[in-house]
Amino acid sequence: MKEIKGGITAAKGFKAASCAAGIKYQGRTDMAMVYSTKPCVSAGTFTSNVVKAACVQWDMDIVKSQKPLQAVVVNSGIANACTGKEGFDACEATAKGVEKALGVPFDSVAVASTGVIGMQLPVEKLVAGVEKMAPLLDESIEAGTAASKAIMTTDTVNKEIAVSFEIGGKTVTLGGMSKGSGMIHPNMCTMLAFIGTDLAIEKDLLQEAVSEVVADSFNMITVDGDTSTNDTLICMANGLAENDIIDKKDKDFDVFKEALAYVCTALAKRMAADGEGASKLFEATIVNAKSKEDAKTLARAIVGSNLSKAAIFGCDANFGRFLCAMGYSGAVFDQNDVELFFKSANGTLKVFDKGTPIVFDEEEALRIMKADAVTVYVDMHEGDAKATAWGCDLTYDYVKINADYRS
Amino acid sequence: MKEIKGGITAAKGFKAASCAAGIKYQGRTDMAMVYSTKPCVSAGTFTSNVVKAACVQWDMDIVKSQKPLQAVVVNSGIANACTGKEGFDACEATAKGVEKALGVPFDSVAVASTGVIGMQLPVEKLVAGVEKMAPLLDESIEAGTAASKAIMTTDTVNKEIAVSFEIGGKTVTLGGMSKGSGMIHPNMCTMLAFIGTDLAIEKDLLQEAVSEVVADSFNMITVDGDTSTNDTLICMANGLAENDIIDKKDKDFDVFKEALAYVCTALAKRMAADGEGASKLFEATIVNAKSKEDAKTLARAIVGSNLSKAAIFGCDANFGRFLCAMGYSGAVFDQNDVELFFKSANGTLKVFDKGTPIVFDEEEALRIMKADAVTVYVDMHEGDAKATAWGCDLTYDYVKINADYRS
Repeated sequence: MKEIKGGITAAKGFKAASCAAGIKYQGRTDMAMVYSTKPCVSAGTFTSNVVKAACVQWDMDIVKSQKPLQAVVVNSGIANACTGKEGFDACEATAKGVEKALGVPFDSVAVASTGVIGMQLPVEKLVAGVEKMAPLLDESIEAGTAASKAIMTTDTVNKEIAVSFEIGGKTVTLGGMSKGSGMIHPNMCTMLAFIGTDLAIEKDLLQEAVSEVVADSFNMITVDGDTSTNDTLICMANGLAENDIIDKKDKDFDVFKEALAYVCTALAKRMAADGEGASKLFEATIVNAKSKEDAKTLARAIVGSNLSKAAIFGCDANFGRFLCAMGYSGAVFDQNDVELFFKSANGTLKVFDKGTPIVFDEEEALRIMKADAVTVYVDMHEGDAKATAWGCDLTYDYVKINADYRS
Repeated sequence: MKEIKGGITAAKGFKAASCAAGIKYQGRTDMAMVYSTKPCVSAGTFTSNVVKAACVQWDMDIVKSQKPLQAVVVNSGIANACTGKEGFDACEATAKGVEKALGVPFDSVAVASTGVIGMQLPVEKLVAGVEKMAPLLDESIEAGTAASKAIMTTDTVNKEIAVSFEIGGKTVTLGGMSKGSGMIHPNMCTMLAFIGTDLAIEKDLLQEAVSEVVADSFNMITVDGDTSTNDTLICMANGLAENDIIDKKDKDFDVFKEALAYVCTALAKRMAADGEGASKLFEATIVNAKSKEDAKTLARAIVGSNLSKAAIFGCDANFGRFLCAMGYSGAVFDQNDVELFFKSANGTLKVFDKGTPIVFDEEEALRIMKADAVTVYVDMHEGDAKATAWGCDLTYDYVKINADYRS
């Protein structure tokens, strides 16, 4: 497997377009469309929030059906959540706009939204956006990059990645893009992610790979603990790589899953590092836990704690806050077994040794904490399970962005 | 029942003292002692965090035993959490200092700590503080107020309250004090609270009343979602009111519970309003929910959401964030049943009506949101259960305080 240039248009048959539809922002693109020249099998994961946006419910119906998926339309101005029947009508109108413009059935068109909750979408602008984008669909890297920029909200950088790998002598390509900056918390984290591959694979196996990979990547990031109404990840596979179709969990399936994990983990980490107001990536790694579930619970509690996040912002090696977060996570353990370290590109420092604090050099701690990415590394000495979670620091800018979001 | 002046020294036989022991702060008091002239039955609630401070474990042993409790010593500099055996030794040395100074058995002395986690306490300063305070013990209102100030950390105001009520023709007094500003989240919230009463009551019934009342008061507040290692509430009853002892759940028990609820709710709300960096009290009231558990879950999710808290800070009637928090709370409901209102001293505004957003006057919304206390009021239209939770807004000052705490 190797990382290659590009994103959502990297795989054969995938095209993208974007435009400024004037839904919320002025002077920037706020709609994107992804289209596969060949109908795709699809898989997806969606928010666990019981208040699901209209578009999430629309997409879940399509992905759960056995029907093919061929296009996705995204807007980054209004979430289309808490919008009642009018919200569903907006989804249908958008999909029918694609049917009219591209000749694909409206029920093979997914729609995704991110932005303000509780506002109605301007349907005529959405449909006009679709009409504008249809003739612009293009398979170039640039078209994919432009789409990854059009789906941004408070993101400060776009997120895209692509890899290629071999399956039975054929080169398969997998590319993706995502956005997400606030309302980010596992199950799903608040995000939109779209992944396109030219792999030939059966639908059930695609879903299984996606679900497994999301559990250890996107669902292990948190920015603010708020699980959005709109989280959506959609993976489309069109088979244009012409590999023998993957129809069982063999070596080929594992090769694909590894590539998918690479792409999803990279996108997830970039989302965490670009959390609203974030100044750095904050990683927690738990090793030698009793169970995988415990390891995940502990890692997520650390990166999810406001007090831990504020300490990371302040470059303060205040390790008690991390132990405190582990303590209320729900996992049961004995603090007398625990070793805790701070790690970064600048070094490693042990600060807690099986129940007892270690007197450490504050200068050295500060040097480690000042890096762009800081890891809290915890050895539980209880078993052999491990997990990593990703988040970001809590900054003045997080408050600024969110105290003044709608206006 | 009527509210009276004073706090922890209001009830007969309760004395308090405080001093500047130089544990963390310079130029302010940082130790307090509460003493009852007569041994007390005690009840308590303690943090659910599995990483419990040494003093929490010390106090749990005393409260769970049938032994009397006669004094509590508090320091507000260092939490004595994650401190191994040395931490336990510090508890014992403090209690033995009280035994020496006041002649009460060391195992009738509770100790409580709040402050930095992972640092060892300077035992000699603690013991010297006890020696200094013993001759200063005083039953005046002023001594109680001074104690309530000595236990503050990042609190901006001290919290104390007292009430009196009649039981069988006798006047009973109940007074308390608490502190808590950060690391505040239910079960227990991060706080220290001490309540003294001259009521005569059996120990088991005292514990039952305390547990019930804490569940609807202190455990319904949140500041930052971080459940501390040190949460402690201790209630002492010395019987000096000379009422016929309460030994069953009769009308007298209910009268006492009502008074206890009044005191605990008042202290809890003051703690929420004084959350680290808070500019206002943020209340969520859920009515007509399917169950009490659901109502509590929903109310706590609203006041616990960073995005909701930031919207409250920004006086932004961005109601989708509150619905989003309800949606990921774990409670199951249909958004098409829900009505959501903003309420404050400046008025009431309905913004969401059974699945559909209401177009409202932004000027009116701003006027309501600008009050010192704002309530999100939600009618679930599912049943008849209700609950209220209290929190505060998320501000620049919260980040400032916590990015730079240890130093």
